Amino acid sequence: MAVLGASGYTGEELVRLLLRHPRAELVAVTSRQYVGKTVAEVFPRAGSYAGAKALQFSEAAPEKIARIAEVAFLALPHGVAVEFAGPLLQAGARVIDLSADFRIKNPATYREFYGHEHGAPDLLGEAVYGLPEIYRDKISDARLVACPGCYPTSILLPLIPLLREKLIDPENIIASSLSGVSGAGRKAEVDYLFVECYESVRPYGVPKHRHLGEMEQELSIAADTTVTIQFTPHLVPINRGILTTLYLAPTALGRDAKRIDATFHGTYAAAPFVRLLGDKSLPDTKNVVGSNIIEIAWRHDPRTGRLLVISAEDNLMKGASGQAIQCFNLMCGFEEDAGLL
Amino acid sequence: MAVLGASGYTGEELVRLLLRHPRAELVAVTSRQYVGKTVAEVFPRAGSYAGAKALQFSEAAPEKIARIAEVAFLALPHGVAVEFAGPLLQAGARVIDLSADFRIKNPATYREFYGHEHGAPDLLGEAVYGLPEIYRDKISDARLVACPGCYPTSILLPLIPLLREKLIDPENIIASSLSGVSGAGRKAEVDYLFVECYESVRPYGVPKHRHLGEMEQELSIAADTTVTIQFTPHLVPINRGILTTLYLAPTALGRDAKRIDATFHGTYAAAPFVRLLGDKSLPDTKNVVGSNIIEIAWRHDPRTGRLLVISAEDNLMKGASGQAIQCFNLMCGFEEDAGLL
Amino acid sequence: MAVLGASGYTGEELVRLLLRHPRAELVAVTSRQYVGKTVAEVFPRAGSYAGAKALQFSEAAPEKIARIAEVAFLALPHGVAVEFAGPLLQAGARVIDLSADFRIKNPATYREFYGHEHGAPDLLGEAVYGLPEIYRDKISDARLVACPGCYPTSILLPLIPLLREKLIDPENIIASSLSGVSGAGRKAEVDYLFVECYESVRPYGVPKHRHLGEMEQELSIAADTTVTIQFTPHLVPINRGILTTLYLAPTALGRDAKRIDATFHGTYAAAPFVRLLGDKSLPDTKNVVGSNIIEIAWRHDPRTGRLLVISAEDNLMKGASGQAIQCFNLMCGFEEDAGLL
Amino acid sequence: MAVLGASGYTGEELVRLLLRHPRAELVAVTSRQYVGKTVAEVFPRAGSYAGAKALQFSEAAPEKIARIAEVAFLALPHGVAVEFAGPLLQAGARVIDLSADFRIKNPATYREFYGHEHGAPDLLGEAVYGLPEIYRDKISDARLVACPGCYPTSILLPLIPLLREKLIDPENIIASSLSGVSGAGRKAEVDYLFVECYESVRPYGVPKHRHLGEMEQELSIAADTTVTIQFTPHLVPINRGILTTLYLAPTALGRDAKRIDATFHGTYAAAPFVRLLGDKSLPDTKNVVGSNIIEIAWRHDPRTGRLLVISAEDNLMKGASGQAIQCFNLMCGFEEDAGLL
Repeated sequence: MAVLGASGYTGEELVRLLLRHPRAELVAVTSRQYVGKTVAEVFPRAGSYAGAKALQFSEAAPEKIARIAEVAFLALPHGVAVEFAGPLLQAGARVIDLSADFRIKNPATYREFYGHEHGAPDLLGEAVYGLPEIYRDKISDARLVACPGCYPTSILLPLIPLLREKLIDPENIIASSLSGVSGAGRKAEVDYLFVECYESVRPYGVPKHRHLGEMEQELSIAADTTVTIQFTPHLVPINRGILTTLYLAPTALGRDAKRIDATFHGTYAAAPFVRLLGDKSLPDTKNVVGSNIIEIAWRHDPRTGRLLVISAEDNLMKGASGQAIQCFNLMCGFEEDAGLL
Repeated sequence: MAVLGASGYTGEELVRLLLRHPRAELVAVTSRQYVGKTVAEVFPRAGSYAGAKALQFSEAAPEKIARIAEVAFLALPHGVAVEFAGPLLQAGARVIDLSADFRIKNPATYREFYGHEHGAPDLLGEAVYGLPEIYRDKISDARLVACPGCYPTSILLPLIPLLREKLIDPENIIASSLSGVSGAGRKAEVDYLFVECYESVRPYGVPKHRHLGEMEQELSIAADTTVTIQFTPHLVPINRGILTTLYLAPTALGRDAKRIDATFHGTYAAAPFVRLLGDKSLPDTKNVVGSNIIEIAWRHDPRTGRLLVISAEDNLMKGASGQAIQCFNLMCGFEEDAGLL
Repeated sequence: MAVLGASGYTGEELVRLLLRHPRAELVAVTSRQYVGKTVAEVFPRAGSYAGAKALQFSEAAPEKIARIAEVAFLALPHGVAVEFAGPLLQAGARVIDLSADFRIKNPATYREFYGHEHGAPDLLGEAVYGLPEIYRDKISDARLVACPGCYPTSILLPLIPLLREKLIDPENIIASSLSGVSGAGRKAEVDYLFVECYESVRPYGVPKHRHLGEMEQELSIAADTTVTIQFTPHLVPINRGILTTLYLAPTALGRDAKRIDATFHGTYAAAPFVRLLGDKSLPDTKNVVGSNIIEIAWRHDPRTGRLLVISAEDNLMKGASGQAIQCFNLMCGFEEDAGLL
Repeated sequence: MAVLGASGYTGEELVRLLLRHPRAELVAVTSRQYVGKTVAEVFPRAGSYAGAKALQFSEAAPEKIARIAEVAFLALPHGVAVEFAGPLLQAGARVIDLSADFRIKNPATYREFYGHEHGAPDLLGEAVYGLPEIYRDKISDARLVACPGCYPTSILLPLIPLLREKLIDPENIIASSLSGVSGAGRKAEVDYLFVECYESVRPYGVPKHRHLGEMEQELSIAADTTVTIQFTPHLVPINRGILTTLYLAPTALGRDAKRIDATFHGTYAAAPFVRLLGDKSLPDTKNVVGSNIIEIAWRHDPRTGRLLVISAEDNLMKGASGQAIQCFNLMCGFEEDAGLL
């Protein structure tokens, strides 16, 4: 395997997961700023895994990488990944992209949310959205997988079963999400300094966040109608973790608690990383940090008639690198949870 | 002045504010567990104020307190404050209660939310809800003021102007609140240990929180119709601060941005502690911690048609002790912001 | 394997490590308060490991446990572990004790530091101090292993090689340690509430901490003379991690930087969990949290002539449960790092 | 008053303190990046003070500032303050410098610690070291005050009385300091990102920190002999606060506990911001955050014969801006604690 652009938090986590993966061999990591340094030097936390002391960062050369790695992970910034995917595919590698570059099917939607034309629109049709619980089979066969963002994962997994079964009103979805600061990446910006975040709880990106594009695409597929949602991200002073509270309007069918239970349990019975709490307990980021688990709980509110669904995940694991490994396992025919427990 | 039950975070903050107040003289503090100790010993943070070294904690004796203090603050637990309010009033003191005991007008509503009969129902009619921006005149003349809880303050100040002017649908209000851990009080419970909160973001009290009673009472008055809201509190790892995000459905009138602006600015033009951010910036708990300010911002979302209103306050200041001092200033004819800047 | 007393942070971590251990099978966990509940219910973080949903907490019955488990871990409070060790050993189990009960060889020293007579003094001679880097062979053969505390591990591993080689003055050792709050255990005490720790950095246990007994015992063995050290623990607002800064007076031999380097590298060449940073970088708790690694760095200060040695470890891993697993691996003849990467 | 360079955390705190100061009028604030913006816009936390909405940031023009302000505070970076002090003094203003530019008396020492020649060596003789508890009279009359750094304040106030009275060995001083992240300033560097600090406790600047120059200068004056100390700063995940633990070797005189008590109480009897805890309790940063207090405690360790002295302060208050206001009060003949309670 190879990881291109392994300098941020997502890349670091991906490298760590691949080094401890029982069936993967990491043969190349690239990052312009770290060329010549070993993985152990750049990522002390990965320093105890075999290979971390020997493996050196190199330049991202698609052809060379394709010769030594069957699968290449792109942990590159949005807009950069698109330049590497094509050459890697052409050279025979399979590609798992963690950026937003291939998540949106419709080039016009991409333009709306990202403000510029897509750089390789011909590849959009081929790219599979990397949500294993929803697209397990397609991912297994894919050449190009576009891993979902951290917010979308926390919102799609709870909502898709409910929309498919027409249990909620698709026009009345509110998602209030709370994210740890690692979601902002390893960027030297004043806004993400310790002192600016320590006593701070704040919303941002109100009202139109870039991740809305991919979320509404997938929700519309599930609902079989165009879905527009209300989504408000907030920054909270934890390192990792996303908690999403969904305020939903159940349909007549969705008012039946047993129906909701059955839908969730039916959909995710075989999903190793979905922990259904039902109405027994409530999600808590501390219970998922460091794991690839997403917790989901639900409650009817008899006073308002609404259905509340709450999820928690580690934004760097199930929201990014863990999910990428899960896709990788499917693509290689490994156990879905290999290297993830 | 006297503070009864000054052993928790609210009581400590109240004592600190009174010690530095230019026009108040704190003559008695009570707490069973600290009798005989000085304020400086019990609250090191208040140790540098004149009086902290001399003033000793005593037993709560209503008559004795009423002889030396014109105003008594009750920082006692819910259900205990009610036992002291009557005797204090009878002995001639005015009372500012920070507990939930006198916030609800209707004894039946009290029973519904607190699970038992009210201990002094005859006083409920007299008690004034201590939200100075809404009940300024009544508070000035009151003998008994019932200070709002921290969540209600963060929700009522943004909503009341909108409901009064019929700018939002009263049946479609969702409040998603994030609170710092001091809101849980100085209770030795495992749930509030550092380790249990540090990496944790979690909802609680879903779906029926006790504060709903007072919130819906006040919202119903403002809307002139019965209001039921969706309210979800979450615990986040900060010490102080509440951030509330309100998801609202504007009426035809409320779709006019200028109308919203004019309503907020009109209502709070003379309010020294309401900082209106409009659509220029977003509230952040770190900007209000340690102050009596509540920040309020609002945005129309053209994609969904909803109106988002967001507030931030310090739960121990504007959400509790600072607001109590603000009421006290009004009751005594002092400047509203005396001792609060 | 069995874990007795698995209700605190150490016990939880131990259970998690055993559940994911490739060669261990956890067959019993005990805790009075959780009898009848499954591991997955009590420890959501361990919920995704196979076995967590089936394994139920039971009462601690030594004979029964010895019949089904070859090795029993005691994660019981100090003073309680001693009651279970004897019966377990007698029933044929090997015991790994994480409490302080068997760390001290001399009953008089035990009395001095713990304030009461030892409950099973006959077992003290047999107990092996569970520091694998120092007592590898003895641990392999031991029936009873007394795992070191979190502070001692962070202090002993840096100091023992220097004392053995007479590179530092044994009468001039100062250890300044900073510990995360999980070190205080899952105790519902006001001092460890989130609000009391969040903005707080504070020393405690000054000047005589209980862990001094075992530290000085082991340092005296290494130095071959009685060693008394200055040790000051501080509490810092992180969940896990201990950072220790040692201020040392090098002997004439110890002033030679190459000699120090050679001593550390010679001693720990084959130690999989000791990461020697030398003078290239400095330890940081974030680089060891979640792993069984201890980082050690050293610097001569030419201005003062002192030698500074700094270590960092995860107090629940290398400082407790990880180290216990490391001992367990040696006792069972497994790879030393089995289940720890 | 004027504040030059009010863009960092120190400058912000200074502006806030001056806005609420009962006897100061802030007439100018400068910062290249904020020219034309109001104080309320740049510092939301200072937004509720009268004047914050009207006062605009301007360019730093010494002559113009000297015409409208009697005292100018320099919150400029090290090496920049020196360019403004001379012109301001010449134009008739008195100057309180918060940078390191005028703290060191000896140009050679300055060169040793800062790596370049001093820019205005003729002013070094005139500058008074701004530690009010030590140089009260000189500060009152000074034209140019050089405020101490945050670490020096936490170390000098505990040590100077002991050295003056020959109670400790001046050759055997070890200072282990723990600082909150605001001490690093508002710099957009990866090292100070929330994620890099959140789970991190780490030493830095080992072994020669820039603040050693001024510390040893002042300690040598107190001891009347050249003093070299061991100083290790550590970064801990709090916003504000410094805790310093001093490991000292008492002289024969210093072994007398009453003598130590008498010395501390004698020296600081009239100091409004020194809180002496003696051996009754231990300093805690949470007890001083937001105040200008420094807490000092001391303990003899009978096991080792050492004397431990521990201090806690808010690095932005007593360690910087609060102390500057204290100097300002003395210079203007105000109460020493005016605006600081």
